[in-house]
Amino acid sequence: MKKYTIATLGSHSALQILKGAKDEGFETLLITTSDRESLYQRFPFIDEIIIIKNFQEFPSLEKKLLKKNCIIIPHGSFVAYLGLEGNKKIHIPYFGNKNVLDWESNRMKQHQWLEEALINVPEQYHNLNEVEFPVILKLYGATGGKGYLYVKDRKDLKKSIQQLTKKNEKFIIQKYIIGVPMYLQFFYSPLNNEVELIGIDRRYETNVDSIGRLPLTHQRGLTIEPSFVVVGNGPLMLRESMLPEAYSMAEKTVAASKKLIDKKGLYGPFCLETIITPDQKFYVIEISTRIVAGTFLFQHGSPYTWLMYDEHMSMGRRIAREIKLAIKQQKLDVVTD
Amino acid sequence: MKKYTIATLGSHSALQILKGAKDEGFETLLITTSDRESLYQRFPFIDEIIIIKNFQEFPSLEKKLLKKNCIIIPHGSFVAYLGLEGNKKIHIPYFGNKNVLDWESNRMKQHQWLEEALINVPEQYHNLNEVEFPVILKLYGATGGKGYLYVKDRKDLKKSIQQLTKKNEKFIIQKYIIGVPMYLQFFYSPLNNEVELIGIDRRYETNVDSIGRLPLTHQRGLTIEPSFVVVGNGPLMLRESMLPEAYSMAEKTVAASKKLIDKKGLYGPFCLETIITPDQKFYVIEISTRIVAGTFLFQHGSPYTWLMYDEHMSMGRRIAREIKLAIKQQKLDVVTD
Amino acid sequence: MKKYTIATLGSHSALQILKGAKDEGFETLLITTSDRESLYQRFPFIDEIIIIKNFQEFPSLEKKLLKKNCIIIPHGSFVAYLGLEGNKKIHIPYFGNKNVLDWESNRMKQHQWLEEALINVPEQYHNLNEVEFPVILKLYGATGGKGYLYVKDRKDLKKSIQQLTKKNEKFIIQKYIIGVPMYLQFFYSPLNNEVELIGIDRRYETNVDSIGRLPLTHQRGLTIEPSFVVVGNGPLMLRESMLPEAYSMAEKTVAASKKLIDKKGLYGPFCLETIITPDQKFYVIEISTRIVAGTFLFQHGSPYTWLMYDEHMSMGRRIAREIKLAIKQQKLDVVTD
Repeated sequence: MKKYTIATLGSHSALQILKGAKDEGFETLLITTSDRESLYQRFPFIDEIIIIKNFQEFPSLEKKLLKKNCIIIPHGSFVAYLGLEGNKKIHIPYFGNKNVLDWESNRMKQHQWLEEALINVPEQYHNLNEVEFPVILKLYGATGGKGYLYVKDRKDLKKSIQQLTKKNEKFIIQKYIIGVPMYLQFFYSPLNNEVELIGIDRRYETNVDSIGRLPLTHQRGLTIEPSFVVVGNGPLMLRESMLPEAYSMAEKTVAASKKLIDKKGLYGPFCLETIITPDQKFYVIEISTRIVAGTFLFQHGSPYTWLMYDEHMSMGRRIAREIKLAIKQQKLDVVTD
Repeated sequence: MKKYTIATLGSHSALQILKGAKDEGFETLLITTSDRESLYQRFPFIDEIIIIKNFQEFPSLEKKLLKKNCIIIPHGSFVAYLGLEGNKKIHIPYFGNKNVLDWESNRMKQHQWLEEALINVPEQYHNLNEVEFPVILKLYGATGGKGYLYVKDRKDLKKSIQQLTKKNEKFIIQKYIIGVPMYLQFFYSPLNNEVELIGIDRRYETNVDSIGRLPLTHQRGLTIEPSFVVVGNGPLMLRESMLPEAYSMAEKTVAASKKLIDKKGLYGPFCLETIITPDQKFYVIEISTRIVAGTFLFQHGSPYTWLMYDEHMSMGRRIAREIKLAIKQQKLDVVTD
Repeated sequence: MKKYTIATLGSHSALQILKGAKDEGFETLLITTSDRESLYQRFPFIDEIIIIKNFQEFPSLEKKLLKKNCIIIPHGSFVAYLGLEGNKKIHIPYFGNKNVLDWESNRMKQHQWLEEALINVPEQYHNLNEVEFPVILKLYGATGGKGYLYVKDRKDLKKSIQQLTKKNEKFIIQKYIIGVPMYLQFFYSPLNNEVELIGIDRRYETNVDSIGRLPLTHQRGLTIEPSFVVVGNGPLMLRESMLPEAYSMAEKTVAASKKLIDKKGLYGPFCLETIITPDQKFYVIEISTRIVAGTFLFQHGSPYTWLMYDEHMSMGRRIAREIKLAIKQQKLDVVTD
C-alpha cells in the first residue's frame, strides 16, 4: 500500500483517519493551516504535512496530490470549508459519493430520504397552525450543534421566526422529542454489501449537558438560553434487543439512497443521530453521511468492533481497510468518486 | 472444550456470552426468534442458530441440546420469557443457582437478603403514615426500568396506589435517594471462592437522563412524567477509596446467600445497583443475580479487568473461563444447576 | 529495573501506579492501613504490602524504603494525609517537584500561576460589590469536590460568608461558569521536553450529576442543596479542532511554572480542569499538579494514548516509563525531588 497516500484536511477526524491509514500500511498526508501544525507534528503516523494559508486554498494542491497517488478521505470540515461545490470539483479519488452531499446538506431532501426509507422521524411542520410545542428550529447550514433553537411556545416561535426571516436564514421546524440522544455510527461496505455497527456515542453539548446540574431553586432568577454546541462526545452502548432495529434502519437508509440518489448510493461511514423515547422508539433527527467526530472514542475499538475484529478497529482504520481491499480487488472506483 | 456447547437465548447479553465462549474454545449455539436471526447471523463466533417461534418454545429443544452437550448461560431474558418455573424446569446444565431466582424476583425477599447481609438499603415503607417523600413505587415484576413510579407527595401517592390496586399490581414503596447511580458488576467464583469487580456502569434511562437538558424556564408549561426505561449504558469508574466498601458489599451479599438460600448460594455474575449520596454512602437499590446488560461496555475489558488479566476479559468470557476450569477440574456440578 | 521499587500509599491511584510500574519491570510496594489491606491483596502486581496504623506514620518507614531503593509516586492522598510539610520532608526519591505543591495548594498562587500562563480563568472577586452571580465559594483546603458552595445571589452570599468566617475558613469567590466540565489529563516529560495528552474525563459528582433527572414539577417542594462530591469519573473526548488550544494551555502551564516556581517547574502528570462555554472557550477552574483519579478510566489506554503508543499506556505506566528512561540515562535526579 506504500504506493498510495491517504490524505485529509487537518481537522475534525484527521487523527483517526491517518492513524487508521498508517495501520493499514498506507503513506499518510495532512493538509492544514499553520496554527494547527504543532498539533499534528506530534504524531509520527503522519508522514507529511502540507501547510496552506487557509483551507480554501486546497484546490491549488490538486496536481501535487494526484502525483502522490492520493486518496482523499473527507470529513465534516470538508463541506464546512470547501463548500458543496468545492467538494464536487475535487479531481483526486475521493472516498465517498459526492452526490450524497446534496442530500445531506439540504434538510428537506434529508427528510425525504428518511421518509423514503420508512424511518421514524420527528414531525416537521410546514403550517404554523399545526405546530405542537416544544419544537427545535434548525438552520439549514447548522453544524456542530450551532444554529439550533429550542422554542417552547407560540409566542417564542413568532419572535424567533421574525428574527431569522430578517437575517434571510432558512430553517425547518421540527418537533422536539423528549428522550435520550444516541448516535449510531455505521460503516457500509460496497465491496461486501454489508452494514457494520462501529460504535455508539452521545454528543457532549454546551450548555445543555450542564444545566441539569443546577436544581430548580438555583436556576430561579437565572435566564439560561439552552445551546447545543458540540465540544466532545461520550461512549454508550445500546440494549441488545434494540440492535435489530438499529441495523435495519441503517440498511434501509443505504437502500433508499441507492433508489433516490444514484446507483452507488451512500457508502462508507455514516451516522444515524437518534432520540429514544420511553416506548423504546428511535426518532432519527439527522443523518451524517461521513465519519462523525464521536467515532474517535473508539480509536482502539468499541465493544461492537471487538465482536467482529480481533484487532484494534477504528472507523478511520475501517475506511483504510476498505480502500486496501478495493485496491487488491482492482475496484478502487467502487469506493471512490 | 470443543465437546461442549455454550448456549443461550438470542437477547439481552447473548453476543457477549457467545463471543466469550468462543474465545475460551467452546462451540456456541443461539436459540432465537426469526425476527432476530439477521442480527445474530452477522457474527461468525456463533456456530449455530436454532430458530423457534417464540421463546416459550424453548423447552421443546431440551433433548436436542442435551445431545449436543450444552451448557445454558441464562441472562435477563430467561426469567422474562420462560418465567421462574420455566427456568427451574430446565434439565440442561444451567450456569447459576436456580434457587436464587426466587430471592431475586421477590422484592420482599431481596430486601430481606440485603438486610441479612448488613448492606445499606433505602428505607421501605409498610405504613403509609411513615412515608417520607419523595418515594419510588416499584412494581414486583418491573424489568428494564419499566414499572417504576416517582411519587413526590402524599396526594400523588394516594392516586398512584389507587390506580395500582385497581390493576391488582403488587408494589413496594421505597425512599427515593437523591444521589448518583452506579452499577457495580461482580463475578463470584465458586471454584476459588473469590469475588472480582468486572466493571462499573450507569444505566442510560429514557426520559430521565434527558430532562436535565431543559432549563427551568423551558420546562415551564410542559408536564414531563419521569420514566426510567433503560435503553443503554455508559461506563464509569469508582473512587479508589470506596473500592474496599464495594468489594465488602459484594462478599457480604454472597455470604448471606449461602446462609439464606442454600449451601451453594449466589455464584457467577451479579450486580449491585447503587445510589451514592454526598456523604459517600452506597444505597443498594436492587441486586441482579445474573449477567447485566451493561457489562457489554467492557466486551474488550474494563479498567478493572485489565488489572487482573493480561487479555480481553469480558463478563461473558469470565463465565466461559469458569466453566472451562470447572470441566478441567471435573467440577462442572459446582458451577451448574 | 528489578533493583528499584516503585512505592506509593494505598489510596487514590495506587492500583494504576503499581500496575504501571510492574508493566515496566519494577518491583512494587504499597504502604497502607489495615482496613484497605484486603483490597490491595487481590492484585498480584503488588509485590509487597506494608501495613501502618495510619498514613501519618509513613515517615517512620523512611530508612526501610531507602534500603529497598524505593521511588515514591505521590498522588492526591499524599497532601491530604501527610500535609504539605510532610511531603517536603520525605527523603526518598519522590516523583515530582515539591515546590509545586505550595502553588497548587494555595488558591491565590494557583490563580497567579494561571494568569501568568495567560490561561483563561473564571473571574475571582475580591470586592463584594463587584460580584456577578451565580458564584462558587471554594474553601482553601477543598478536596474531592467537598467544600464547594454554589451561591446564587447577594443574600445567599452574605449568609455563606458569615458562616464561613465564623468557622475561620479561608475561601475564594469564583464566578460560576455555565458550561460543560471537561478534565484534561496531561503528562509533561522533563526528559524529552514534551507534553502528552493522556486522556479526558469528567467527574461524576453527587448530587449534582443526578438532580437533572428530576423534572421541574417534581423538584417543586424539595430543597436540594447542590453538592459536588466526586465519587467517580466517566470518559470523554474533545472536538479535534479544540486540541491545539488544549495542548497550548498545557504547554503554557508548564512554561509559567518554570518561570514562577523554579527551574524544574511542573513535571509528570497534571490535569487542567475546565468548563467549556457555548462559544467553545475553555475556563480553567483548577489545576491538579499530580496524577488525578480519573486517569484510571484509561488503565488500558485512551483514544489519545493509542495514537502514540502501540501498547496499553496508562498514566501510571507513563510515570514508570519516564522513571525507567531516566534511570537508563542516569538522570533520575531530573525526574525526582
